[in-house]
Amino acid sequence: MDVLLINGPNLNSLGTREPDVYGRTTLASIERDVEMQGAAAGLSVECFQSNHEGAIIDRLYAAKSDGVQFVIINPGAFTHTSIALRDAFAAVGVPFVEVHISNVHAREEFRHRSYLSDLAAGVLVGFGEYGYTMAMDYVIAQTVGA
Amino acid sequence: MDVLLINGPNLNSLGTREPDVYGRTTLASIERDVEMQGAAAGLSVECFQSNHEGAIIDRLYAAKSDGVQFVIINPGAFTHTSIALRDAFAAVGVPFVEVHISNVHAREEFRHRSYLSDLAAGVLVGFGEYGYTMAMDYVIAQTVGA
Amino acid sequence: MDVLLINGPNLNSLGTREPDVYGRTTLASIERDVEMQGAAAGLSVECFQSNHEGAIIDRLYAAKSDGVQFVIINPGAFTHTSIALRDAFAAVGVPFVEVHISNVHAREEFRHRSYLSDLAAGVLVGFGEYGYTMAMDYVIAQTVGA
Amino acid sequence: MDVLLINGPNLNSLGTREPDVYGRTTLASIERDVEMQGAAAGLSVECFQSNHEGAIIDRLYAAKSDGVQFVIINPGAFTHTSIALRDAFAAVGVPFVEVHISNVHAREEFRHRSYLSDLAAGVLVGFGEYGYTMAMDYVIAQTVGA
Amino acid sequence: MDVLLINGPNLNSLGTREPDVYGRTTLASIERDVEMQGAAAGLSVECFQSNHEGAIIDRLYAAKSDGVQFVIINPGAFTHTSIALRDAFAAVGVPFVEVHISNVHAREEFRHRSYLSDLAAGVLVGFGEYGYTMAMDYVIAQTVGA
Amino acid sequence: MDVLLINGPNLNSLGTREPDVYGRTTLASIERDVEMQGAAAGLSVECFQSNHEGAIIDRLYAAKSDGVQFVIINPGAFTHTSIALRDAFAAVGVPFVEVHISNVHAREEFRHRSYLSDLAAGVLVGFGEYGYTMAMDYVIAQTVGA
Amino acid sequence: MDVLLINGPNLNSLGTREPDVYGRTTLASIERDVEMQGAAAGLSVECFQSNHEGAIIDRLYAAKSDGVQFVIINPGAFTHTSIALRDAFAAVGVPFVEVHISNVHAREEFRHRSYLSDLAAGVLVGFGEYGYTMAMDYVIAQTVGA
Amino acid sequence: MDVLLINGPNLNSLGTREPDVYGRTTLASIERDVEMQGAAAGLSVECFQSNHEGAIIDRLYAAKSDGVQFVIINPGAFTHTSIALRDAFAAVGVPFVEVHISNVHAREEFRHRSYLSDLAAGVLVGFGEYGYTMAMDYVIAQTVGA
Amino acid sequence: MDVLLINGPNLNSLGTREPDVYGRTTLASIERDVEMQGAAAGLSVECFQSNHEGAIIDRLYAAKSDGVQFVIINPGAFTHTSIALRDAFAAVGVPFVEVHISNVHAREEFRHRSYLSDLAAGVLVGFGEYGYTMAMDYVIAQTVGA
Amino acid sequence: MDVLLINGPNLNSLGTREPDVYGRTTLASIERDVEMQGAAAGLSVECFQSNHEGAIIDRLYAAKSDGVQFVIINPGAFTHTSIALRDAFAAVGVPFVEVHISNVHAREEFRHRSYLSDLAAGVLVGFGEYGYTMAMDYVIAQTVGA
Amino acid sequence: MDVLLINGPNLNSLGTREPDVYGRTTLASIERDVEMQGAAAGLSVECFQSNHEGAIIDRLYAAKSDGVQFVIINPGAFTHTSIALRDAFAAVGVPFVEVHISNVHAREEFRHRSYLSDLAAGVLVGFGEYGYTMAMDYVIAQTVGA
Amino acid sequence: MDVLLINGPNLNSLGTREPDVYGRTTLASIERDVEMQGAAAGLSVECFQSNHEGAIIDRLYAAKSDGVQFVIINPGAFTHTSIALRDAFAAVGVPFVEVHISNVHAREEFRHRSYLSDLAAGVLVGFGEYGYTMAMDYVIAQTVGA
Repeated sequence: MDVLLINGPNLNSLGTREPDVYGRTTLASIERDVEMQGAAAGLSVECFQSNHEGAIIDRLYAAKSDGVQFVIINPGAFTHTSIALRDAFAAVGVPFVEVHISNVHAREEFRHRSYLSDLAAGVLVGFGEYGYTMAMDYVIAQTVGA
Repeated sequence: MDVLLINGPNLNSLGTREPDVYGRTTLASIERDVEMQGAAAGLSVECFQSNHEGAIIDRLYAAKSDGVQFVIINPGAFTHTSIALRDAFAAVGVPFVEVHISNVHAREEFRHRSYLSDLAAGVLVGFGEYGYTMAMDYVIAQTVGA
Repeated sequence: MDVLLINGPNLNSLGTREPDVYGRTTLASIERDVEMQGAAAGLSVECFQSNHEGAIIDRLYAAKSDGVQFVIINPGAFTHTSIALRDAFAAVGVPFVEVHISNVHAREEFRHRSYLSDLAAGVLVGFGEYGYTMAMDYVIAQTVGA
Repeated sequence: MDVLLINGPNLNSLGTREPDVYGRTTLASIERDVEMQGAAAGLSVECFQSNHEGAIIDRLYAAKSDGVQFVIINPGAFTHTSIALRDAFAAVGVPFVEVHISNVHAREEFRHRSYLSDLAAGVLVGFGEYGYTMAMDYVIAQTVGA
Repeated sequence: MDVLLINGPNLNSLGTREPDVYGRTTLASIERDVEMQGAAAGLSVECFQSNHEGAIIDRLYAAKSDGVQFVIINPGAFTHTSIALRDAFAAVGVPFVEVHISNVHAREEFRHRSYLSDLAAGVLVGFGEYGYTMAMDYVIAQTVGA
Repeated sequence: MDVLLINGPNLNSLGTREPDVYGRTTLASIERDVEMQGAAAGLSVECFQSNHEGAIIDRLYAAKSDGVQFVIINPGAFTHTSIALRDAFAAVGVPFVEVHISNVHAREEFRHRSYLSDLAAGVLVGFGEYGYTMAMDYVIAQTVGA
Repeated sequence: MDVLLINGPNLNSLGTREPDVYGRTTLASIERDVEMQGAAAGLSVECFQSNHEGAIIDRLYAAKSDGVQFVIINPGAFTHTSIALRDAFAAVGVPFVEVHISNVHAREEFRHRSYLSDLAAGVLVGFGEYGYTMAMDYVIAQTVGA
Repeated sequence: MDVLLINGPNLNSLGTREPDVYGRTTLASIERDVEMQGAAAGLSVECFQSNHEGAIIDRLYAAKSDGVQFVIINPGAFTHTSIALRDAFAAVGVPFVEVHISNVHAREEFRHRSYLSDLAAGVLVGFGEYGYTMAMDYVIAQTVGA
Repeated sequence: MDVLLINGPNLNSLGTREPDVYGRTTLASIERDVEMQGAAAGLSVECFQSNHEGAIIDRLYAAKSDGVQFVIINPGAFTHTSIALRDAFAAVGVPFVEVHISNVHAREEFRHRSYLSDLAAGVLVGFGEYGYTMAMDYVIAQTVGA
Repeated sequence: MDVLLINGPNLNSLGTREPDVYGRTTLASIERDVEMQGAAAGLSVECFQSNHEGAIIDRLYAAKSDGVQFVIINPGAFTHTSIALRDAFAAVGVPFVEVHISNVHAREEFRHRSYLSDLAAGVLVGFGEYGYTMAMDYVIAQTVGA
Repeated sequence: MDVLLINGPNLNSLGTREPDVYGRTTLASIERDVEMQGAAAGLSVECFQSNHEGAIIDRLYAAKSDGVQFVIINPGAFTHTSIALRDAFAAVGVPFVEVHISNVHAREEFRHRSYLSDLAAGVLVGFGEYGYTMAMDYVIAQTVGA
Repeated sequence: MDVLLINGPNLNSLGTREPDVYGRTTLASIERDVEMQGAAAGLSVECFQSNHEGAIIDRLYAAKSDGVQFVIINPGAFTHTSIALRDAFAAVGVPFVEVHISNVHAREEFRHRSYLSDLAAGVLVGFGEYGYTMAMDYVIAQTVGA
């Protein structure tokens, strides 16, 4: 595995609910696109979604053991509440890109604080599902070269 | 299933500990009463308790698939910390009643903020175990009629 | 008198204005329903509405003298501004239920603080006019028995 | 009239309720003592209590017309909420002493702000009913001489 | 009645006290001027002053019943403390202009928050008694035409 | 020149964009109306608009040298950010009226602070384009007489 | 010794400097008056002034050993900064009256917080040098009887 | 012109100073790359840099007149201070992407607030000079198609 | 079981990552040392680590059933975010010692708040892995005697 | 001297006052125990208590000159107020352990901030008098070896 | 050029307006004095004043190109609002002294924050026009030697 | 004595400790330089250093009695905590210059507040030991003339 794509809580519901905020594409479709984008650049991609904070942290340590080079994560609500996830990224030391589908700056005040952003290689906010493509482009440029 | 009754972290200990704050009735007894109250009104009720945030979110999505019409939830401490749970309610779009056994307004400052209340159909605070009965009455009135 | 139902400022306009927020039932209708609900349980109910903070406080002391056992109050805007009303409840020592028709948690920030809630036997928020019925049910259960 | 003694909301209940906080002396007894203390010094004292903010303000203007020289006021909860009362004192320009029976500094946070204190000739906190005697002593010293 | 001019607490003392802040014109004189200004434009004006929050709210509902088209209000200290008055304006739904004689922005911090301004058709601050004339000009322009 | 009318950043776009917030009248039209209103009262008016903070400050000093008696300013966004503009008004010492077309109190939190208001002769908020007319009326009343 | 009168930092300069704020009476004169007032009631009074926080705390422990019954203290600036002094009062457990000559509520924001007031038997603010007399009256009433 | 690339204050110094924070590529080089990237997709790109807030706002209005379809902006320090720039974007109504070379979330507290982000189509933070490439990719995908 | 040693999220990575902050000893080694320290004093120790908040809470209830006498916990990031864990400790009522390997007071602001400390028997911060030894010493002294 | 044990303000009263909070052991007894504990490990210990901030700072410099290797300090109330003491520790550069007998996290808000903790080798809170023993154990382990 | 003296917004008005705050010396006179002071030490000084933030930043880059060794700046109101100016100083990397004629600490709250001070070689506040002389003395001592 | 130079807590350690922050010159050397600088201008200088707040206050009163004309003070940590020192300066009424060797604006947040600065004739921050020379230059210019 070269790249791990993590989607946090409630992103399982992508495409079927609240399409005004999160778009109409399903998570399965997004994951397939990112895998194909990786494959085209010679990078193997694994995808993981969970509503459990602990499961995501466990997965991160496992990925580290598997030699993952880059993580792309949409942390969902854990962005704003999970110091444990932050500590996990600091502990594994793998570079990561933080992606948000919606424009969190235009939503509730409590969505304006991120426990991850200052550790991220970069942050993408508001580009919809296309944000995953942009993140993967960056990962490819960093690992394989543009 | 018509109604899902969710009890969050530490409510498994109801009745046996801190009775001054939470009363002396066990969770099993409360759940049985709510189920009977529902049955009398022709509503099937399922009950779920967990100390895991992710498990409650997963359960909520499953209930949605099962066609649940109303959720009654005592979110316990997740009330004050779980944006993921909030997002799950927004995603499933099922109306819910928020119940607190104790009077959270008379307790620590950090219990005064709820991430769920503004999305709830209604909120019940401080009525002890009777709050579940009141919540179920409301659900019956809304779905079956008073 | 067994129960005193108090409605605070602007609740005189119920039913005729801002029906999206407060519903279409008039205060007179609500008061009649609560009185009948009480009568059916053998409890006499008196109703009082005022836009004057001082008048509500005076009424509370008078009710105490008349031997009232329970108060149900929708304090309206006084919820957020009247420490005098809080002190009056502390002074008379009669248990009370606080009712809000609309979901105050989903409205302006200044409606999130209540000077009464931590003294209340219980608080009901967002159930519309049905909240009065639920409050009266609780009062009946507490005084007459369920 | 030389001196006006004003007692704000809920001080009508002095002596009969919450004696641990406010003592066991009734307001009538306190008023009689202050009147006698004034009479002994050749000062006529009038006493006024109300739970209505507007009534206290009206009384203040009337007292000004009557040539009152000093006001002693226990503003009760209006201490913390009434800018209108503050403005009234600024408008009438009569010197006043602010008295609190209980130690407001040892109570809820919201009792720590006073809209009157910075305009007062002096403030007395926590001396129980004896505070009125001390305030009257000061007024006598200022008007008649010690 | 076409227009209701409301003056809140302590504005009864206009002209005779604190002239440096509030000018030397009495409220009676201001009210007469506004009535004449209205009459000249064919608008009947009624004037009301009270130090009682509840009385102002009651008056507002009565004016609504009388078919008032516009309210001009100098809420005095209630500007900063009365959510009940705010709710009353929201309930009656009559457009209103908020007037302050003094420049509240140059005074104490607690005068910088208004519970009415965001609901007002417009706000006038600091123009002295001339502010009432300007407000009436606006009302005439809106109702009769410039 | 007797009066200088200053319009700050983005007011060049008046009338053509965001008409729901700012109305449909162009700045040129507003300027012409104010000039004519001044001419009718015997006052010469000059108009200035700029998106450059420094240019507005420079213009203010120039106007001072030209003997301007009054400034009417709609500072736009500089209201909330420009201490330099505040200092310029303090330095030139010319009285000014602050005008806002929209009701800033009903908009974002950061629009509630003004660095100019406490220095202004008066402030007009929310009256739309008619606010300029009202401001000019005040200026005429102050300089020429009503 | 029955009563200990403590004056904190800078009160040595009473009477000779900043008379507008603190009056024209010297500390020596105030101390003599309090001693005489005590003597007349049969109470021995000792006086102590220091600019050293540690010295005041040491003195308090010594007084406790000497069997002092009451302390009157004007803590000066230590009111707002000395948690050590607060702890000393809690440790010795002798009742005390807190006196401030000037009206601290009308001065800088940082003078509005007291680390002592919530432990005090009572607090006197703004009565000038007469405040010491009033405090001593209270002490006499509490120990000897009025 | 199809796309306008704006670089705010101090971005003229890119590549020659503080390379640890901002990288070693000059602004001229970045601008050339973006122009070529646009040309390859059939989009004409114009570039503009200024240290003057007013000049950037003026340029935005000019671009609107020229029919620009998308703006890419690195607002530099104006991100955190310029409400005028925010208002300009709201007025012209052209979609824009906000780019930051460095990770502002890992820098001073005052860089965490953006007056633009909630209006942006999307925000890119911390990807270095590659962020411009990613932004342009998004613009191409939105206007020309991926 | 006499003592339960709980290590929260990311402490599985002890010794292998970020040794500057957390030292070079593995969790397995620490757990073995504590078990031996307990055994030497006649106390059986069980060890548990999890990245799942819910699993730790569940473990705590199980330990209570097993008759555990003391808990030693390094809650990691849950220190600052888990009210549910706090409530669990309040519910089970077993005394516990809170241990932090690093000096949380010298790290990010959000690590300065603990939801557990005020309930703890004691708190140890910054002593590195030796903190566990100190905590176990305390537990031994409390249960077996020093 | 190898180790200096400093006790700050009011710790002279240990054992005789407020035993519920601080225990029943006198400071002399604690000092003797720590000296003996040191002696057993071959370390000479000196003890110092003062209610004077300056005296503690002076003592710290003197200890530095005497070649002290470690300081154990219970700073009492100076924990929360003395930046001078903090600076002294930074200046002398001797490692120190901060000890608090009571659980400061369970007391007043102003006891939650420490000016020393982030500079300390470690912090011990709430273990009662046993905390001194634990601190000395740590010092012995660090200097002599466990 | 060896030294650049920058004066920010409104300092063009020095000497002619608000002499109580800023003194009676004109900016031209101050500039001439600093130039002569520099010349006497063999340092060429250039002076620049502007009310435009962008112009000052542009000037700073030009000075850098001209080999300036030191900047003395009185940033006026930009002190408190211009992050762009801060970034410019960080980018050019030339040491600078920040001078304020008036005592900003004794003025409005919003003048207490400086975006420049933590980057400055030193800051001079409140010494009137003599502050420029002191700043130039420092620059001479640093570059030429005392 | 004409001038009193006061150095507050921990400045006794100048030159020997933390030279990166405070430089390598000893306090004795600085004091000698200032005395010689004064002597050259015909001013006698006395120097005083103490770690005791009370001692500095006492010294200030003594200096006042001795006819001191100016005080130069580096208050060290008392800058941020001593209201008593502030009051002493207000009481003695002697003009003073506040000097800080290091740039306090670039250090911890709690060093950004000064209780003295708004009373000072001027404040010098960050110029190292040369700041004392600059302060003395100012004092000479003010008392003897430049």
